[in-house]
Amino acid sequence: MRERRPVMMRPYEKDPAAIYARSFATVRAEARLERFDGATEALVVRLIHACGMVEIADRIAHSPGAVQAGMAALRAGAPILCDCEAVASGVIARNLPAGNAVICTLNAPRVPDMAAHLGTTRSAAATELWAPNLEGAVVAIGNAPTALFHLLEGIEKGWPAPAVILGFPVGFVGAAESKAELAADPRGAQFVTLRGRRGGSAMASAAVNALASGLAVTEPDR
Amino acid sequence: MRERRPVMMRPYEKDPAAIYARSFATVRAEARLERFDGATEALVVRLIHACGMVEIADRIAHSPGAVQAGMAALRAGAPILCDCEAVASGVIARNLPAGNAVICTLNAPRVPDMAAHLGTTRSAAATELWAPNLEGAVVAIGNAPTALFHLLEGIEKGWPAPAVILGFPVGFVGAAESKAELAADPRGAQFVTLRGRRGGSAMASAAVNALASGLAVTEPDR
Repeated sequence: MRERRPVMMRPYEKDPAAIYARSFATVRAEARLERFDGATEALVVRLIHACGMVEIADRIAHSPGAVQAGMAALRAGAPILCDCEAVASGVIARNLPAGNAVICTLNAPRVPDMAAHLGTTRSAAATELWAPNLEGAVVAIGNAPTALFHLLEGIEKGWPAPAVILGFPVGFVGAAESKAELAADPRGAQFVTLRGRRGGSAMASAAVNALASGLAVTEPDR
Repeated sequence: MRERRPVMMRPYEKDPAAIYARSFATVRAEARLERFDGATEALVVRLIHACGMVEIADRIAHSPGAVQAGMAALRAGAPILCDCEAVASGVIARNLPAGNAVICTLNAPRVPDMAAHLGTTRSAAATELWAPNLEGAVVAIGNAPTALFHLLEGIEKGWPAPAVILGFPVGFVGAAESKAELAADPRGAQFVTLRGRRGGSAMASAAVNALASGLAVTEPDR
């Protein structure tokens, strides 16, 4: 432990509204957003805001009506299916337009046995429990590539298609591949994804929050 | 909605242990880790694994004994103080060595009034409620720069120093500045941080999980 010495810390912004305004202004000034329509642009701004990287704008892939479909689904009361608790906890519940259920099945007691039986990860097995809620749902994947792969296989086998897949698995094994697969064939779902290794629960939550807010800049959560 | 057509998806890795092994091998092959001691290297590998970016290794700053101090604190039963629920939910509770408490005060009912009274964000105000648990604690900040700034100011005013500050606030306003302040003067705490705009709850959780696992590669959580 070092001895404490008096420090003069530089002043910093403490006003939540000002923080949000300056953040979004910085993102809009630095990111290449020209190729997006207005609703999608607003979602991309929030994705960038969640990760601090303006350059991800160049790696976003999406189906043309994804944002509109996701907003309509939420307004119609669709549940939000998340691959991990961190995504679920990042969803700003008070902004959801219809008290939408936020569901994460990863820690359901049956999942470890299901994973062993299916010969896959717990995250993939957990998507099997989405089936009753999947039709027209908003899916937010922010961790496991195998969850996205397994969902796509499930839809292939006849599971109902969600309204939109917000696909942001992260990492070095399967993340880029699963997102490329989603973009190449979303199996009848709308989608938004970030190509490559980057992703994560904060981006997946931010995508849901952007849909939920109707894509206006809403109350800060800081 | 497009018509479904049969697709042959390429095979993908489904074995959790193999996914982890290949992930960590990729990180170690690609990231510049030479400047870290063994324990810190293992933590940095987990940070990279959480975000999919090997290049962040070059922007990590830490005090020399940070990892050892964090591990010792957890083993001694220290609580983990998180600035948002997403960080808390990313902590793998079953790996904590002493049933350590994972505490997030952001949504405590008093916090909005405290924030208004203090003229700051809810995230900053929430750190005021850490004080009784702060001495020797593990602090994990993965969202709000103002939480890190306010904590540093608090320690400056006489709050007890935590054992280690895992500082990963993210974004465009204050994130780089608050982490630079932490690295320039950690006020008697050990610290690990990522310079610049990048950060996030997944990194903050990963840092805690790395400490908790004793920095060995443990059971996959996918």
